[in-house]
Amino acid sequence: MECGDPVEQVSLRPGMSVDELMRQLARAGAYNGGALARAADIYERMLTDRNAVKFFGLAGAMVPAGMGGIVSDLLSRGHIDVLVSTGANLTHDIIEALGCRHYHGSACCSDVELRQDEINRIYDVYLPNDAFITFEGFIQDALASLDPGRSYPITGLMAMLGQRLDHGILSTAAGKGVPVYCPAVADSMIGLQCWLFSQSGKISVDAFSDMKDLIDLCFTAKKAGALLIGGGVPKNFILQSMLMTPQGFSYAVQLTGDRPDLGGLSGATLDEARSWGKITGDAAAVTVYGDATITLPMLVAAVLERIAR
Amino acid sequence: MECGDPVEQVSLRPGMSVDELMRQLARAGAYNGGALARAADIYERMLTDRNAVKFFGLAGAMVPAGMGGIVSDLLSRGHIDVLVSTGANLTHDIIEALGCRHYHGSACCSDVELRQDEINRIYDVYLPNDAFITFEGFIQDALASLDPGRSYPITGLMAMLGQRLDHGILSTAAGKGVPVYCPAVADSMIGLQCWLFSQSGKISVDAFSDMKDLIDLCFTAKKAGALLIGGGVPKNFILQSMLMTPQGFSYAVQLTGDRPDLGGLSGATLDEARSWGKITGDAAAVTVYGDATITLPMLVAAVLERIAR
Amino acid sequence: MECGDPVEQVSLRPGMSVDELMRQLARAGAYNGGALARAADIYERMLTDRNAVKFFGLAGAMVPAGMGGIVSDLLSRGHIDVLVSTGANLTHDIIEALGCRHYHGSACCSDVELRQDEINRIYDVYLPNDAFITFEGFIQDALASLDPGRSYPITGLMAMLGQRLDHGILSTAAGKGVPVYCPAVADSMIGLQCWLFSQSGKISVDAFSDMKDLIDLCFTAKKAGALLIGGGVPKNFILQSMLMTPQGFSYAVQLTGDRPDLGGLSGATLDEARSWGKITGDAAAVTVYGDATITLPMLVAAVLERIAR
Amino acid sequence: MECGDPVEQVSLRPGMSVDELMRQLARAGAYNGGALARAADIYERMLTDRNAVKFFGLAGAMVPAGMGGIVSDLLSRGHIDVLVSTGANLTHDIIEALGCRHYHGSACCSDVELRQDEINRIYDVYLPNDAFITFEGFIQDALASLDPGRSYPITGLMAMLGQRLDHGILSTAAGKGVPVYCPAVADSMIGLQCWLFSQSGKISVDAFSDMKDLIDLCFTAKKAGALLIGGGVPKNFILQSMLMTPQGFSYAVQLTGDRPDLGGLSGATLDEARSWGKITGDAAAVTVYGDATITLPMLVAAVLERIAR
Repeated sequence: MECGDPVEQVSLRPGMSVDELMRQLARAGAYNGGALARAADIYERMLTDRNAVKFFGLAGAMVPAGMGGIVSDLLSRGHIDVLVSTGANLTHDIIEALGCRHYHGSACCSDVELRQDEINRIYDVYLPNDAFITFEGFIQDALASLDPGRSYPITGLMAMLGQRLDHGILSTAAGKGVPVYCPAVADSMIGLQCWLFSQSGKISVDAFSDMKDLIDLCFTAKKAGALLIGGGVPKNFILQSMLMTPQGFSYAVQLTGDRPDLGGLSGATLDEARSWGKITGDAAAVTVYGDATITLPMLVAAVLERIAR
Repeated sequence: MECGDPVEQVSLRPGMSVDELMRQLARAGAYNGGALARAADIYERMLTDRNAVKFFGLAGAMVPAGMGGIVSDLLSRGHIDVLVSTGANLTHDIIEALGCRHYHGSACCSDVELRQDEINRIYDVYLPNDAFITFEGFIQDALASLDPGRSYPITGLMAMLGQRLDHGILSTAAGKGVPVYCPAVADSMIGLQCWLFSQSGKISVDAFSDMKDLIDLCFTAKKAGALLIGGGVPKNFILQSMLMTPQGFSYAVQLTGDRPDLGGLSGATLDEARSWGKITGDAAAVTVYGDATITLPMLVAAVLERIAR
Repeated sequence: MECGDPVEQVSLRPGMSVDELMRQLARAGAYNGGALARAADIYERMLTDRNAVKFFGLAGAMVPAGMGGIVSDLLSRGHIDVLVSTGANLTHDIIEALGCRHYHGSACCSDVELRQDEINRIYDVYLPNDAFITFEGFIQDALASLDPGRSYPITGLMAMLGQRLDHGILSTAAGKGVPVYCPAVADSMIGLQCWLFSQSGKISVDAFSDMKDLIDLCFTAKKAGALLIGGGVPKNFILQSMLMTPQGFSYAVQLTGDRPDLGGLSGATLDEARSWGKITGDAAAVTVYGDATITLPMLVAAVLERIAR
Repeated sequence: MECGDPVEQVSLRPGMSVDELMRQLARAGAYNGGALARAADIYERMLTDRNAVKFFGLAGAMVPAGMGGIVSDLLSRGHIDVLVSTGANLTHDIIEALGCRHYHGSACCSDVELRQDEINRIYDVYLPNDAFITFEGFIQDALASLDPGRSYPITGLMAMLGQRLDHGILSTAAGKGVPVYCPAVADSMIGLQCWLFSQSGKISVDAFSDMKDLIDLCFTAKKAGALLIGGGVPKNFILQSMLMTPQGFSYAVQLTGDRPDLGGLSGATLDEARSWGKITGDAAAVTVYGDATITLPMLVAAVLERIAR
């Protein structure tokens, strides 16, 4: 067994940039701080590799926590080629794009009183219920614009919604032509609204029809990389997309608050993904355990600083 | 502020039954041990309430860890009216029902060597890749039996698969007429096989068409209860199903390895669900944090002991 | 890479004993459920190995949660030869032995109101402050009985306290002649009371003088085993005690709610301890991640059932 | 129930400083990212409050991970008045100060081979065993310089060690006259060496004698604040020091990877500490859950940037 480089004690400088700090974490190099620094190196390589198709997986309640701005920014800078999201993040993105807001609240409060005051809670974030009235009007209008009787892929539905908004994740993705996959759309307020619409209207949304484009893309991609925020459906959906091809992801970074020993895929290490062939045997890959409301901004700020040079 | 009952020091008896142990945990009553004991009380009340529709949410890699047997058993005893599962658990259920096996392995090993030996890893469980060959043949045969050109709901697809198997979760659910919802079916090997079939065959699977039955059931149910293993899509899909109705769940138990402070729904407390109206203000509800491979067997063994009396 | 035994789906029987359940977990064998089953096998071997000195490490707020009864029981059955505890657990053990009680409370409440009502909170356990008045009187009386000017080892202090009580951990240990180590005694209410006494009285407590007996015991022990609840000082103090000898622990089980990736010893795997020689290269050792208020009662109930046969 | 400020979506700027990033986290304000931003506000107020005595608690294996440099820096800038540490961190600080190094390694490796190669592992950090030979020589020499027969407080021992080193935590603390408390010193390699020395030499180390100075300081302090890294003995020892006085801490920040629902003090919220009177009812206090190898550098870099202006 061999020792690697020595651990350097972290040295801070008042006013240092985020990437200066990240480089200190790299020299320290231990535990999740070290993993985050390795993630920055991998994500920098991934974003600057012109042959790599860039996937972004978005799980966890990230938009209500203000992390949606980072995703929109990455989209507008051209750093995301395929976005896979939970339905909830897209629901909250639409809510923000419609001008409704999430608010700072408290995680220790009376949820019964919140209910009486028509405020929904997401840990320490409050969302007044009237946001969903606005949301409902928007979705019903949007669905009414579809051709009755036609079957739509989920990505098509998302692009149509994005085109009707003027900022946020769906809007930016639509503007850039980036497909937004949302395999579990039924498991969200968007899904409930689609069901409501289908009670009178006549549209059909096919659960599988948008997978062909994805798998075609995987087949033709020279290389692929993924930044995964949280686990859930987006992580597996992205990683499994490569299973139908002879190759795997060459770059992979996961930022997650889960843990591996419970067996669930959300907390599984990316090494485990090598056994399945989802990522290649020699892929540059790292999992950073921690709250993505800290690790995502640090990672992206550091890497943007590097590649903007 | 008032104190409740005194904490009683746990007293163990060699040979004690699982429910005897659970009652000791109840008298101690603290931390997650106390929460598990409250979960047993709630689940007992839920299973013995004839007016309550019983939901079961299955996330996490539970079937590869041997927990599928508990779900099948609950189904055959009539304790589950609606099952909502990840696609992965159903994939592994089919694999086991087809006679392929998962094996004990190690979490600390070379995933590159596993890949070479065609073994897939799920934390410390190994699954030889040839299981997927068998699985693929089964799914392709099953899909070929469908009417070309017709659109199927996901629950219909699951029932059809269950009818072609002779044991396990899908088989037992089909035999009992229990609907199996799998909103994120595209995010699983079942989904990949459906896509593969759709390249030549002509079936369509509608993402929303089975939601009507679910929401109708929620409307007509006098009361509802849910046992949620893990979080993910099953947790939210079950809880949101009540949002279209004037009522909420009256009983709810979640066993999860996640944590609340990261904001994700998987780790959110059930109290948070009260603010949304997903569960009622006075619902009997508790979250037990821990590995469900320990808490689920203890919970179910204790409650079966109580209601079998 | 080779596969082990197949995963058996768990089969529950109403009325089954705790060890019957444990044996089901063993056949499933995955994640922390599998680890707990291996822990039972190891602890059974450790308790039935007449050549093995049995250490027990007690960290975490276990006594306020009712887990002290298990420790007292193991002591009275002769299954603990050396106990290492945090000062807090011994403080709460004394409080209970003096007839004061801990009470069921709520983790989500106003701590400012609790303060006004003179109730101290330990997650969801409440302890009225007057318990500490009783405690203070007991400790001051006990210290007054010591010879002024003499220097005491910490174990001597603990034995003296135990002799003045009639039930609980310290009392049972004193009755059985089991030494109770508490290296961080200054970090507890016992420590604060000792300091208070030392303002007028004249005793001295030596930080190191009881280590000789411990290390002598480690030198002469043919074999050694350890059950570690939580991490903290007890875990390291027990494991490091073997560092001065040519051997290491042959059996080790840790039940902890920590996690390894943060680098702290409390969450470190027992494999890591092999690199230091704290446990032997071929020691039977396993870490079970989870809340010890669930895993400890299950483990001990199952093993007592086995060895009482 | 009232909503606070709206959540602002995070906006990143390539080249932004660490405090610019922290201010973005403040505007987002949710989950642990929001908590970290509140921690920065509190720590800034604490460091700039001339009436506040500043405590620093150091648990977890922070020095092997390169975080010791931050502690030394805070000491040399005068931002720590009292340091409370585990014995392990001080052991590793001495090792680094003696010129021995920790090295980057792997968390997934053969610990048996590491043992054969005489390398000790701390998660993904390697420490060759010969560092302990150097360490042993240093400690034995240092102890030999003490007056035989005299009783030393632990802080005195630590100051003496610090004076014999020329950089690092103990050295800087000694140079600045900052007392270093290490209540569980017996639970460390320093403790083992003291025991070894005491076999031939004649020194005595009193477990309680340095508490008087600490409690006197607490009595005379107008206000007090604490930055707690990890939990363990340092957290409790610092917080309990105020219990003998009529006041409590006015500022408190804890960075921890533990969790509250397990009941242990390490993961307990600081709100819980209000019920005990350890912190005041209106103290500015926040707990940030996550790996301190990420949160500590971010926190300190942001606050140094603010107060260096």
